[in-house]
Amino acid sequence: MAENRAVAYKAPGVVEVIDVDYPTFELKDGPGVNPANVGRKVPHGAIIRTVATNICGSDQHMVRGRTTAPANLVLGHEITGEVVEVGPGVEFIKVGDLVSVPFNIACGRCRNCKERKTGICLNVNPDRPGSAYGYVDMGGWVGGQAKFVLVPYADWNLLKFPDRDQAMEKILDLAMLSDIFPTGFHGAVTAGVGVGSTVYVAGAGPVGLAAATSALLLGAAAVIVGDMNAERLAQARSFGCETVDLSEGELVDQIEQILGVPEIDCGIDAVGFEARGQGHGADAKEAPATVLNSLMDVTAAGGALGIPGLYVTGDPGGIDEAAQKGSLSLSLGTGWAKSLSFTTGQCPVMKYNHGLMQAILHDRVHIAENVNAKAIPLEDAPRGYAEFDAGAATKYVLNPNGYLDAA
Amino acid sequence: MAENRAVAYKAPGVVEVIDVDYPTFELKDGPGVNPANVGRKVPHGAIIRTVATNICGSDQHMVRGRTTAPANLVLGHEITGEVVEVGPGVEFIKVGDLVSVPFNIACGRCRNCKERKTGICLNVNPDRPGSAYGYVDMGGWVGGQAKFVLVPYADWNLLKFPDRDQAMEKILDLAMLSDIFPTGFHGAVTAGVGVGSTVYVAGAGPVGLAAATSALLLGAAAVIVGDMNAERLAQARSFGCETVDLSEGELVDQIEQILGVPEIDCGIDAVGFEARGQGHGADAKEAPATVLNSLMDVTAAGGALGIPGLYVTGDPGGIDEAAQKGSLSLSLGTGWAKSLSFTTGQCPVMKYNHGLMQAILHDRVHIAENVNAKAIPLEDAPRGYAEFDAGAATKYVLNPNGYLDAA
Amino acid sequence: MAENRAVAYKAPGVVEVIDVDYPTFELKDGPGVNPANVGRKVPHGAIIRTVATNICGSDQHMVRGRTTAPANLVLGHEITGEVVEVGPGVEFIKVGDLVSVPFNIACGRCRNCKERKTGICLNVNPDRPGSAYGYVDMGGWVGGQAKFVLVPYADWNLLKFPDRDQAMEKILDLAMLSDIFPTGFHGAVTAGVGVGSTVYVAGAGPVGLAAATSALLLGAAAVIVGDMNAERLAQARSFGCETVDLSEGELVDQIEQILGVPEIDCGIDAVGFEARGQGHGADAKEAPATVLNSLMDVTAAGGALGIPGLYVTGDPGGIDEAAQKGSLSLSLGTGWAKSLSFTTGQCPVMKYNHGLMQAILHDRVHIAENVNAKAIPLEDAPRGYAEFDAGAATKYVLNPNGYLDAA
Amino acid sequence: MAENRAVAYKAPGVVEVIDVDYPTFELKDGPGVNPANVGRKVPHGAIIRTVATNICGSDQHMVRGRTTAPANLVLGHEITGEVVEVGPGVEFIKVGDLVSVPFNIACGRCRNCKERKTGICLNVNPDRPGSAYGYVDMGGWVGGQAKFVLVPYADWNLLKFPDRDQAMEKILDLAMLSDIFPTGFHGAVTAGVGVGSTVYVAGAGPVGLAAATSALLLGAAAVIVGDMNAERLAQARSFGCETVDLSEGELVDQIEQILGVPEIDCGIDAVGFEARGQGHGADAKEAPATVLNSLMDVTAAGGALGIPGLYVTGDPGGIDEAAQKGSLSLSLGTGWAKSLSFTTGQCPVMKYNHGLMQAILHDRVHIAENVNAKAIPLEDAPRGYAEFDAGAATKYVLNPNGYLDAA
Repeated sequence: MAENRAVAYKAPGVVEVIDVDYPTFELKDGPGVNPANVGRKVPHGAIIRTVATNICGSDQHMVRGRTTAPANLVLGHEITGEVVEVGPGVEFIKVGDLVSVPFNIACGRCRNCKERKTGICLNVNPDRPGSAYGYVDMGGWVGGQAKFVLVPYADWNLLKFPDRDQAMEKILDLAMLSDIFPTGFHGAVTAGVGVGSTVYVAGAGPVGLAAATSALLLGAAAVIVGDMNAERLAQARSFGCETVDLSEGELVDQIEQILGVPEIDCGIDAVGFEARGQGHGADAKEAPATVLNSLMDVTAAGGALGIPGLYVTGDPGGIDEAAQKGSLSLSLGTGWAKSLSFTTGQCPVMKYNHGLMQAILHDRVHIAENVNAKAIPLEDAPRGYAEFDAGAATKYVLNPNGYLDAA
Repeated sequence: MAENRAVAYKAPGVVEVIDVDYPTFELKDGPGVNPANVGRKVPHGAIIRTVATNICGSDQHMVRGRTTAPANLVLGHEITGEVVEVGPGVEFIKVGDLVSVPFNIACGRCRNCKERKTGICLNVNPDRPGSAYGYVDMGGWVGGQAKFVLVPYADWNLLKFPDRDQAMEKILDLAMLSDIFPTGFHGAVTAGVGVGSTVYVAGAGPVGLAAATSALLLGAAAVIVGDMNAERLAQARSFGCETVDLSEGELVDQIEQILGVPEIDCGIDAVGFEARGQGHGADAKEAPATVLNSLMDVTAAGGALGIPGLYVTGDPGGIDEAAQKGSLSLSLGTGWAKSLSFTTGQCPVMKYNHGLMQAILHDRVHIAENVNAKAIPLEDAPRGYAEFDAGAATKYVLNPNGYLDAA
Repeated sequence: MAENRAVAYKAPGVVEVIDVDYPTFELKDGPGVNPANVGRKVPHGAIIRTVATNICGSDQHMVRGRTTAPANLVLGHEITGEVVEVGPGVEFIKVGDLVSVPFNIACGRCRNCKERKTGICLNVNPDRPGSAYGYVDMGGWVGGQAKFVLVPYADWNLLKFPDRDQAMEKILDLAMLSDIFPTGFHGAVTAGVGVGSTVYVAGAGPVGLAAATSALLLGAAAVIVGDMNAERLAQARSFGCETVDLSEGELVDQIEQILGVPEIDCGIDAVGFEARGQGHGADAKEAPATVLNSLMDVTAAGGALGIPGLYVTGDPGGIDEAAQKGSLSLSLGTGWAKSLSFTTGQCPVMKYNHGLMQAILHDRVHIAENVNAKAIPLEDAPRGYAEFDAGAATKYVLNPNGYLDAA
Repeated sequence: MAENRAVAYKAPGVVEVIDVDYPTFELKDGPGVNPANVGRKVPHGAIIRTVATNICGSDQHMVRGRTTAPANLVLGHEITGEVVEVGPGVEFIKVGDLVSVPFNIACGRCRNCKERKTGICLNVNPDRPGSAYGYVDMGGWVGGQAKFVLVPYADWNLLKFPDRDQAMEKILDLAMLSDIFPTGFHGAVTAGVGVGSTVYVAGAGPVGLAAATSALLLGAAAVIVGDMNAERLAQARSFGCETVDLSEGELVDQIEQILGVPEIDCGIDAVGFEARGQGHGADAKEAPATVLNSLMDVTAAGGALGIPGLYVTGDPGGIDEAAQKGSLSLSLGTGWAKSLSFTTGQCPVMKYNHGLMQAILHDRVHIAENVNAKAIPLEDAPRGYAEFDAGAATKYVLNPNGYLDAA
């Protein structure tokens, strides 16, 4: 049995790469595993040797100590890999397959999965609908920032790349299929982006850049990305977006300067609850409702808001009592007067990953380039977390098994 | 030229029936008319002799003094009538036609109208997208709780009933097509109601009862209506709904008792910003976010919220500073964890009124009975307003020209 | 091990109830089993003791000798039952569950299943996408007009009724969930039926009656059913449909008489390739394109045609060479001038059965009554086939294990 | 009053540029004007000085003598122009506006227009729903291959370009908005094209190239265009399509060579009823069902067919009796086994032209280049018709007033 190494959350601000057990076809007790899930048999699972496993902005919520994640929780829910072992209940996925793992764990047997709502599967998290690998309060499935990871319900969850060589040529792009590309795409789709739309994306982090990429892929006429991080805005401009530096004036004015009108058709919140008010970079105070309120201001009547940015039910580190229990002061009257609609929640990755894979394989989109994906060794994960947290315009992709050495 | 009489807002709590001008094909200056609309020519208009014109819950916001409506504003946006005169630009609507008037005024020429978004027409209200008859800050189109009223863009706006005699037989039902039936239906549609859905409707006023009726018409398996008004709840039960008296225990528990599970698929907010917290009837304090927060609590993951209930951008009578500017403290984290979606805004009546008319004419739905529509003389409008405000389980229909004497 | 008995096709016009093997978790060789499926392991399967198993119009195609079905093929794809045994790969379905079995067999693991297209699953039929129990050229899964039957991919395929006693009270209604109710509903949905639609259903057999029931459940204003069988038309009238006797005049004229206009919004073909031209009952000649052409004639511009009626790729008994290879002479020009759309194919049952089950359990629809479902002993199946083929206005439900004795 | 010149159909194979009346706000009698439309007042109209007016493949059906078009019928339904006069009923369109004219004439007041189905407007063609300028049996609205043309219901029909200078820079692209770009787009949309789709477009004429452009704009992974005209196929390759020369082997084999699988997700018929069987160019015999049957062969189960190619109800020049009355021998069984859906009819241009205009103005698509649009003088129209009919890979744009001299 191979040794296994993984990125673990240790304490606020601290992640470490540690030795962990090689996975078996059972969910064993461990940090953050829901008692009701301990000992769960996983004959339908596959063991994956990770090819690429990315650091995600939502990991940062845990690492910053904004959650109740326990020490030694193994992180990582953006997983791409090679199947090295399958359980006896696996029929179609084969050892040797190169696969993308949707970050939402889903059973493929409940009412929600049958309705394509794999982000809120009813059977994988004893606490509530929906789960993810390596995430607090999500049932305890072990994270994938590791050399090896177990994927349950493998026939259902895994997206197989049709050809290994073709896939390896675009592996950094394909590595974005596990989360941020579909997540950004879901934001764009639920914001109503179509051919000819004008779009504003709040946030130029990787999800924001993925949402902007998606909007362009969907035929948007103009995509404007807003942030206060100059480097990330430059990244957005590199693939055809317009940008707005929120520290340099009112959003609505800057939109008017770009489009000739002070409003956009579609708004995407790629920031979530750790939003900061306008101000100068890190000095800006957290203002959890600021993004949604500004989106309601600039979205034209009849528009829609896609909200892939995470909002939580409890945030011990919130700026005030309301924020700590996940309440936001929203100008709903503004939204109502404009007949806006709003879509929240985890992206159901499986709804989109096949089509996005096809777009990548046929060279129609360059998501890795757009989000500035960069492979680094697994052992460098702490540095990746730190640089990402400091605002680097980079999507860090861990390379635990050397597959990406050539990429 | 015929004399004209109309219901006017005089002061908080006071409406009166007054003499007003007979309409012409021009929007003249008057109480609440937007200066930019004064003198607007309306050759595309039709003058309607009202057959039925209903009192609406949203009129009550003005009458209670919760808005900046000026004295002598003529009220009324739920209009059904007979065409008595048409402007030179009217081609298909004819004198003698019996018609329903959608409460949203729309031009039939702007981008939004072309996209069926007639609730946010760009050309009728100089202040913002969207308009209605007899409503504050909506451009100043004169209200229709009157003997005669002008309808602009008549060929576009008016829904003609195919046969006069057939229509007069169901005229109280058809009178609900101008607003509350489509509005309730829009709430149900945007809440995702379909065949087999379980539905909770917050509020047993006329819009709530119309939403419940609509949910049943759409094939819902179970429709639960919640309120604190026993008479209105009895009305809901009269046509097959389950009910929840919110003063008698937790909503979630009562839902579980009815359905066996503590959640519903689809939530409809038929209350809006004047919501009150749970308590005993009129003693309950206003709590503008309470309905939306409770809907997020009881709606199952993956569900949707239809929000026909009105939320305003400014409410001088709001309970606190936030409410006064239309901000609500919403538990968005709860909604996000459940992947809920939300649809707000005026119902685009024209999207639904033809189909609902067909359902009425073919005797498939009895909306007037379900909302307990009752015709009263125009001159009794003040009494109607007062009784409705006091919580009567009645939809008051004014009968300014005697057409309803037989009904 | 229990004995097993089943209805088998013996020769054109002949079915018999014969002894067959009790199912195991393997697909063994037998009449009509695709060689590539022989020996297929089914650890994900469940063995069902049938509660109700219906005779379907599409079984008649085989029994009439219009296919290449081999002798001794066990028939039956409309199965409702109790789980008596589950394979080692089954996790959520339990012994004792009362379940409905969708007639389309699906793996729950392929791209099509993930997209809810369970009627064209890629993994169950070696010949082409899509499969069904007991049907020629569908892979060879053994039919369910039997005391016991094997259902593969049980966690995915089976719809569990939430409460056994509640289910047994409505068991004849629930027995329609395996095929004809969803199939009729799919016809209505794909014909664009919504609230207020006017609908024409061609064919008053069980699928036609189910389509008509569905149209009403979806809120249709008027549903007209056409056939040449007076008894079946009477059945349609029994639950609120209008009817047209096609042997008594032109369809378009009869529609005009009923609706006042000579066209309908939505057309449903519940007949398929064995359509007969107008004439007197059994004397009428087969005219495979006649239903579709007449639907194009009477459907209003902008309408849609739902086509649940079966059209085949090869029909050795077709009236001419074109019909024998499944070609129809269609007036597509008529359809094109009206901008019609057309939806064909097997109904993906799983998309609809949960909602329809809810509608049944909450007493919102009485499908068994509407299609005149009648339970008969398994051993009487030959009589059921004969009477159904002779045009009885009855849906025959076999009762192999006595569960329906009380129904 | 200015003089007017226009392209008229004279006889099979013959078009001429002739003197015609300058338009007034009335539809006067003339070649092909429906008697019921003669004398129709058009106060809602605008007179357009044409900037660009294109020759369309559907004009060719008339010119080839395949219809009952009378001599001297003025041709042309692809119109872009400048408003030079408006009727008294026009409110928002102004003299001097630069506009695109959708080829479908629509009233903006009937039920179909209100439902965005402007291709089947009920009020403009006395014979049947739907109309177009300069087309036989479409009501008699005078064609726009002329210096000046009347557009009825101008506020509804016209799409105004937001900025004149910006528009003139992309005027050849914008000239495609009146018909072929939306028509191709409608084909792609109704074929279900989305991000990652694989698409086959039958026909590399201008509509086929516009459909291919649209599919790419919608995010298709791979677009394959098939034809037997090498020059047109080269044109398709020029903007990123794959191509199939139908004279060089079986379609299904060539698709497999390109994609690795012998099927595509989405099929578009951009040919219509004058389809020819495979063979060598002009020698190939007409085979009106061949395109649709081959699309059913190569489209994957669960796919859809968009059918912008015209199918007619009567074709005096059809190859046999069936073709002459618009009947096709379709392998519907093949389509049914695959659960295919089919959408026919005129494109409702107004549903798409705003979004496509935005995509053009923001430089996201180069439709003029892709279809090889080429401006020629009005007086050269006969040459344009002849070259186009001979198979030139060119979209001919007439330039009656010199606006395009710079383009």
